[in-house]
Amino acid sequence: MAKQKKQPRPKAETPKGFRDYFGAEVTQRTEMLARIAEVYHAYGFDALESSAVETVEALGKFLPDVDRPNEGVFAWQEADDEGRGDWLALRYDLTAPLARVYAQHRNDLPTPYRRYAMGPVWRNEKPGPGRFRQFYQCDADTVGAPSVAADAEICAMLADTLERVGIPRGDYLIRVNNRKVLNGVLEAMGLSDEAQRDAVLRTIDKFDKVGEAGVRELLGKGRLDASGAYIDGVGLTEAQAEPVIAFLTSRGESAAETLANLRAAIGESAIGAEGVAELETIAGLLEAGGYGPDRIVIDPSVVRGLGYYTGPVFEAELTFEITDEKGRPRQFGSVAGGGRYDDLVKRFTGQAVPATGVSIGVDRLLAALREKGRISATPVGPVVVTVMDRDRMADYQAMVAELRAAGLRAEVYLGNPKNFGNQLKYADRRNSPAAVIAGSEEFERGVVQVKDLVLGAKIAENATLEEWKERPSQFEVPRGEMVARLRAMLDGAE
Amino acid sequence: MAKQKKQPRPKAETPKGFRDYFGAEVTQRTEMLARIAEVYHAYGFDALESSAVETVEALGKFLPDVDRPNEGVFAWQEADDEGRGDWLALRYDLTAPLARVYAQHRNDLPTPYRRYAMGPVWRNEKPGPGRFRQFYQCDADTVGAPSVAADAEICAMLADTLERVGIPRGDYLIRVNNRKVLNGVLEAMGLSDEAQRDAVLRTIDKFDKVGEAGVRELLGKGRLDASGAYIDGVGLTEAQAEPVIAFLTSRGESAAETLANLRAAIGESAIGAEGVAELETIAGLLEAGGYGPDRIVIDPSVVRGLGYYTGPVFEAELTFEITDEKGRPRQFGSVAGGGRYDDLVKRFTGQAVPATGVSIGVDRLLAALREKGRISATPVGPVVVTVMDRDRMADYQAMVAELRAAGLRAEVYLGNPKNFGNQLKYADRRNSPAAVIAGSEEFERGVVQVKDLVLGAKIAENATLEEWKERPSQFEVPRGEMVARLRAMLDGAE
Repeated sequence: MAKQKKQPRPKAETPKGFRDYFGAEVTQRTEMLARIAEVYHAYGFDALESSAVETVEALGKFLPDVDRPNEGVFAWQEADDEGRGDWLALRYDLTAPLARVYAQHRNDLPTPYRRYAMGPVWRNEKPGPGRFRQFYQCDADTVGAPSVAADAEICAMLADTLERVGIPRGDYLIRVNNRKVLNGVLEAMGLSDEAQRDAVLRTIDKFDKVGEAGVRELLGKGRLDASGAYIDGVGLTEAQAEPVIAFLTSRGESAAETLANLRAAIGESAIGAEGVAELETIAGLLEAGGYGPDRIVIDPSVVRGLGYYTGPVFEAELTFEITDEKGRPRQFGSVAGGGRYDDLVKRFTGQAVPATGVSIGVDRLLAALREKGRISATPVGPVVVTVMDRDRMADYQAMVAELRAAGLRAEVYLGNPKNFGNQLKYADRRNSPAAVIAGSEEFERGVVQVKDLVLGAKIAENATLEEWKERPSQFEVPRGEMVARLRAMLDGAE
Repeated sequence: MAKQKKQPRPKAETPKGFRDYFGAEVTQRTEMLARIAEVYHAYGFDALESSAVETVEALGKFLPDVDRPNEGVFAWQEADDEGRGDWLALRYDLTAPLARVYAQHRNDLPTPYRRYAMGPVWRNEKPGPGRFRQFYQCDADTVGAPSVAADAEICAMLADTLERVGIPRGDYLIRVNNRKVLNGVLEAMGLSDEAQRDAVLRTIDKFDKVGEAGVRELLGKGRLDASGAYIDGVGLTEAQAEPVIAFLTSRGESAAETLANLRAAIGESAIGAEGVAELETIAGLLEAGGYGPDRIVIDPSVVRGLGYYTGPVFEAELTFEITDEKGRPRQFGSVAGGGRYDDLVKRFTGQAVPATGVSIGVDRLLAALREKGRISATPVGPVVVTVMDRDRMADYQAMVAELRAAGLRAEVYLGNPKNFGNQLKYADRRNSPAAVIAGSEEFERGVVQVKDLVLGAKIAENATLEEWKERPSQFEVPRGEMVARLRAMLDGAE
């Protein structure tokens, strides 16, 4: 083999659409997921961590005649002895792997199988602002439970979960709908043309965006959208469109009123009646469990993902207002969604297995907690013990060991100690609440200097601040009292 | 596009060499990693979660003339507009990404940068028994600290970490060596032939396996290995080989004695003297910190990975005995290793950046904790509230809600309730400590039946067991006392 030319330096960059998470970004997520796991665990859900890599065959969704099956996923071909091995891919969600896991291990798993899963998923999509190709999902699903009591349980657990992580009651609302009711409505409309049915479904999915008036236009003649383009309508008469509108706007003052409106919308449809009965059961179970309409409501205007699900669907919204990038107030919006999808495992086994579950948008929920001030944006860094005399390293190490033993986060400066200013700049960059300074003179006298960096920063912000006068930003303490003084100081600061 | 033929059912299988983790396998690892993170955090290390996907260019290690750079990694090519995008790959460890992250973000990161990282890595290798292509790593590294005080800190932190997760003092030993000392030994030997130096290095790496006598043979004429094959030797005379043997066997009764032996082995070599001085500094700092030779020792027989590192190297071994698959006692062995690798970031920036770190073998350490009985192998499942009357679902849900509010894990049976035997089988499979049974008769009388499944299992194991006579395996309690009775029963059981 010929010698290679000297390689140019590689670029130090994440691939497009990927990112790194630093410090509190990691630990805050870990803590939030731990709290969520506590709730799931208490409900009897078991953890599952499936392989991040699946066969493309198991993930499904790929066209067999495409040479490279990378539509939306990251996929590659294994090199076997003949160079033509299996196609593998990174999982794009946690639900498809659950189906594979349940089909593979069903003889060893309990039925029903309640499981939760948390971890990254990957999408081979065009990245955009705030839209990454690797992100976390956090799912809970019950496989093998045909009863909608399982759906009601998921909704109640979701409410408990949101409160557990720090979203107070009144700041969230879980809305429940049912795909079967929609099917009933379509049946009642007598739409025999499949293309027209699909067009109605696509229109319903736009309800969140265009509202009732927009849906009326789109079901009828068509509509001029915001960009000025004309969108063709489905071509229904107003009378024909009415059941769809009645369905979407059927939420009443109470669950009973909503259910009555839905019964009217579905006419004689058997599947529609089944859907309404399911919603009635769910509403009854939730009410009996104390999950009133201030937390969970039957709301047929929830349409997101209706096409994917086969029964009840649910969505959790945060109802408090935030200010958007243009300074306008708006509701925080959706942080979780889910529903019943009964055809999941059938692909593998040929046998229908009922399943229902929810997925929490981890990054959205974290952002909401930051918005609500439930998570501190700038966590406190470690106490930095500076190095005045590099022959005293063992003494400095002893100081941080004592501080740690007392429950404080602490570290010795390990860079080049020559320039003391750099050490304080380092402490600043670490968000240190305090620095400890001890040179040979201090060691001789058995004292250390403590620099209060939180106070120092406040004084720097407002040098004339009267209230800080009595609190010196640097003071001397006997070595033996260092830990106690720092503890007292930092307990006060936090 | 022509219509596809009906697809055969996909196989429900993890790809070869991958596996799923269930229940306690996940939560025990999560808990262990949380404890490790506590120690790392207290030492001032910050969390980092880098992207799982890197450019092949950033990961390095790939031959530019190979069409598909998949040597040891899972890699694929991005499809850009011309169909020839960047090559991406799954990270194969947490160190290469650290180098990329540090080079990319160095202006925003503190220097020195202490970081820890925990997560899966992927290796495109032939899987074997217990050897998977996705596994966890847990690393802590200090980038930008030239002082061996950073190495000493990592060793001390590793000792604290092992004790924190449940390995008692006396059951582990961290051994420290230094690559520079070995370089000094080679220099003292006057080996000018590079091929011969490499052969000596490869031989040293076999010390763990073949011992002193084996190394002597391999440095000389050669050796008949266990399979009966003859391995050619390096061809040194016994006198020439002596410094290598002296180096490998230089561990004395005390650090001072070991250091004296090493000084003799390196002769006049300057690099060797530097290495010994570094070990002396490390030994001094650790001794001053109270990390005596019962926890951390200077031991030149640690050779694993010496080739990769540039300065101090360390390895943590668990010293307690286990029984191997053939019933013979042996030491548990290595669970962590690391060292100084100063050329990490240079690839990207051209500037040398010193770095040192440690990697814990997550699965090995978990196995050790199970071995020591620090982790229960069969965790307690939820209390199962059975369904005798499906119209009472709201009442059953209320029971589990009360049990959860009291801190107990609890769930309602959500399968088909018709066959009551199936419900008890389900509880059994869930490792439930107790089942609650209430039909219409119990509801009328205001009581529930509690079935003690732990006791039931014990009686089933040994039906004549006298001591269980007084404890009934099923008893009736007033509905209002259900939670308190179950709490008392389960507090006792755990």
